[in-house]
Amino acid sequence: MAKPSIPNGTRDFAPEVMIRREWIFEIIRSVFKKYGYLPIETPAMENLSVLTGKYGEEGDRLIFKVLNNGDYLKKVSEQSLIEAKQGEEAGAKKLISQISERAMRYDLTVPFARFVVMNHAFLTFPFKRYQIQPVWRADRPQKNRYREFYQCDADVVGSDSLIYDAEFLCIYDEALSKMGVPQFTIEVNNRKILSGYAECIGEMEKFSDICTAIDKWDKVGEEGVTKELRERGIADENIAKLLQIISLEGSNEEKIAFLERTFDPSSEGFKGVQELKEVFSIYENFDNYNGKIAFNLRLARGLNYYTGTIYEVRAEGSTVNVSIGGGGRYDNLTGVFGLSGMSGIGISFGADRIYDVLDELKLFPENADSGVKILLINFGTETQNHCLKVLQALRNANIAAELYPKNIKIGKQFEYADKKKIPFTLAIGTDEMSSGKYKFKDLRKGEQKEMGLEDVINAILL
Amino acid sequence: MAKPSIPNGTRDFAPEVMIRREWIFEIIRSVFKKYGYLPIETPAMENLSVLTGKYGEEGDRLIFKVLNNGDYLKKVSEQSLIEAKQGEEAGAKKLISQISERAMRYDLTVPFARFVVMNHAFLTFPFKRYQIQPVWRADRPQKNRYREFYQCDADVVGSDSLIYDAEFLCIYDEALSKMGVPQFTIEVNNRKILSGYAECIGEMEKFSDICTAIDKWDKVGEEGVTKELRERGIADENIAKLLQIISLEGSNEEKIAFLERTFDPSSEGFKGVQELKEVFSIYENFDNYNGKIAFNLRLARGLNYYTGTIYEVRAEGSTVNVSIGGGGRYDNLTGVFGLSGMSGIGISFGADRIYDVLDELKLFPENADSGVKILLINFGTETQNHCLKVLQALRNANIAAELYPKNIKIGKQFEYADKKKIPFTLAIGTDEMSSGKYKFKDLRKGEQKEMGLEDVINAILL
Repeated sequence: MAKPSIPNGTRDFAPEVMIRREWIFEIIRSVFKKYGYLPIETPAMENLSVLTGKYGEEGDRLIFKVLNNGDYLKKVSEQSLIEAKQGEEAGAKKLISQISERAMRYDLTVPFARFVVMNHAFLTFPFKRYQIQPVWRADRPQKNRYREFYQCDADVVGSDSLIYDAEFLCIYDEALSKMGVPQFTIEVNNRKILSGYAECIGEMEKFSDICTAIDKWDKVGEEGVTKELRERGIADENIAKLLQIISLEGSNEEKIAFLERTFDPSSEGFKGVQELKEVFSIYENFDNYNGKIAFNLRLARGLNYYTGTIYEVRAEGSTVNVSIGGGGRYDNLTGVFGLSGMSGIGISFGADRIYDVLDELKLFPENADSGVKILLINFGTETQNHCLKVLQALRNANIAAELYPKNIKIGKQFEYADKKKIPFTLAIGTDEMSSGKYKFKDLRKGEQKEMGLEDVINAILL
Repeated sequence: MAKPSIPNGTRDFAPEVMIRREWIFEIIRSVFKKYGYLPIETPAMENLSVLTGKYGEEGDRLIFKVLNNGDYLKKVSEQSLIEAKQGEEAGAKKLISQISERAMRYDLTVPFARFVVMNHAFLTFPFKRYQIQPVWRADRPQKNRYREFYQCDADVVGSDSLIYDAEFLCIYDEALSKMGVPQFTIEVNNRKILSGYAECIGEMEKFSDICTAIDKWDKVGEEGVTKELRERGIADENIAKLLQIISLEGSNEEKIAFLERTFDPSSEGFKGVQELKEVFSIYENFDNYNGKIAFNLRLARGLNYYTGTIYEVRAEGSTVNVSIGGGGRYDNLTGVFGLSGMSGIGISFGADRIYDVLDELKLFPENADSGVKILLINFGTETQNHCLKVLQALRNANIAAELYPKNIKIGKQFEYADKKKIPFTLAIGTDEMSSGKYKFKDLRKGEQKEMGLEDVINAILL
């Protein structure tokens, strides 16, 4: 058969990549845990009806649908098939619900909302969970964009306490610092402040349009945003007012002071500023933290469900100058599944993009490699039984160890160690077997010493 | 909308279940690593052509197919649709390849073979990998059988050394012992020995039928196997000879001695016995191990690709009296993808079934719970900033800690700790804040003590 391949936009992860990926996940996981978040998992397949309508029309199109098993055409009439074919893309789309009941997870937020609704009788609120699982999107594959990628989310639902909003700043800061991501900025804003802009310029009914337009600032700049606002029917004088507000540069404090002067104290916008002040104040009371937290007046976050604090994290200094995380507070995540009044807040780490940044900047620590530590050279049957006991003693000391499986030329065996980046070798011939002093070699230094088993173990564990 | 649900045969995992599942995975992972196996991951979706034809006709039917995105009917003629509909199940089946290019992983073995073929220029052989990922099968859901479940596989390819065959016995033994699985038996046989039966009774061309029939012994007993062998065209006298061999009871040594007398020394069967003896001999040279290894003359393993040592692990003492693992040696796993001569061996742990056994027998360790360790009681704004600093000091000591997010009634806050099984609480009112002596309570013992931060940390970490 032809050489096999994998679907476009998906990837195999070989051991050296996996070890680094796991290192990233483990840091995120350990920080989530320290802050009291516990793991959950949801199935890869959800009922299609749970997912459709939650990600907009474009999202619906990008969801991977799973064909029903068995005779999936049984309940479809010949007429429906003909109509579907004749209706072209719209026809095919209409047929989907008849031949596909299930679809693949598109993000972790909607499945989490579904989980909370289905299990809320058994959960203790505020419910804090983290979830690290792949999601699938039928986006056009391109650099740094995949059809299968992992999301790493933490959310708490059932509380509107701003302590959580501040803690997520700590979580981002701690996890990204631990990974050594250079020059990252945690941008913060509040959706109520965006609402304040709309109030302030007298375009409240255009709130959603304003968010959508501002959201594109980084991509299209002031000019592009102006154009979009105009197209969305906002008067030129109001656009000017808006731009005056959101163009303000300065420290976080200066921006806050400016907005406090600008917004009416009874307005939603003013409330947003107070929330943001409180979040910063709580954050500063956690000592030690000194990540760059930037109040970004132009941060909007596209998703409509955000209602309070919003975050977006950017890493600079690499060609992957993109968002490596984001999130925010929502008042009614579970409402769509019939459970209202569930305020919550959550964030996400873009682990695949973090990987790309660290990889490009060669920032993975050398010892993120937790592979095999020592290779025992195989000298054949005479010493094999002795080697097996040594091998086991090493493993009992929790050292990843291998005996080369065959007595082939020693050079070849060392080549194997070299290729697999195994740092140490141990040679036990008949002489070494009788003396109990083995030839222990540090391949990185090129040094060889004779030592007993106990010293070998200590040398590796050091 | 209606209360949401999840697809039949799939499951959500809440934190208490996840923590136990992760504990199982972590044990398996750590043992794999110690034996020199490194992680890989493959995509959830494979090209359908990679999967079809690898699992038999029934397997093909049970593979979940993913519908092509966009106008998936574009290249399908109206005539094909009508024929598919009129052809009923066979027609629907025929249409699949036209509307579905991708399918969901059905096991980890075929993707691994595909991975080795695609990457063999970059891999170092013998290549040892482990892989812990979910697979999907459209089986009818029932007790202990799921449509999404995890497989935990380790395989080495590119070597026929029997050291690996023996090491897998150690791996099973060590991992299952660490998990506290009671009364497990690692059953072993060798496909060459099964071949020996066929030679011995003069039914070599029926080798595959004999394997299939013997494989069902546990389910249908001697009578059922006899019936099946007869139906598969094996003469009664030969069936009698076969039954005489495979009914033998006794120690592993007795069985080996019996087969050495029975098989012709130049036969394939005799070679299988020698391999098995060698595997046992190597295994015994690894000290410390004393799991129950049983040479089961009736172990056959259904899958056709096995050619040497085969394993199956059973756990008794629970209603889940089923296989919790299995595997074996194969000479040509990658041949189907055009790369021949790749001998290898692999095993699998049935983590979901191990979970069910441990759960039913209540064998999960109490401290498998790695959840939140301490809750700080919230007494309001006056002490909040102090609490935040204490909270951070605890987290800096790597203790999972939370501050209750609001100043509500203390009883309610303790209820939260209780429900979440948080073992300790810390109360810091204004008095405690000035004295630096906090009220530290051990909720399991019901004891409360006053102590400083350092003592609190030590008490938790002890």
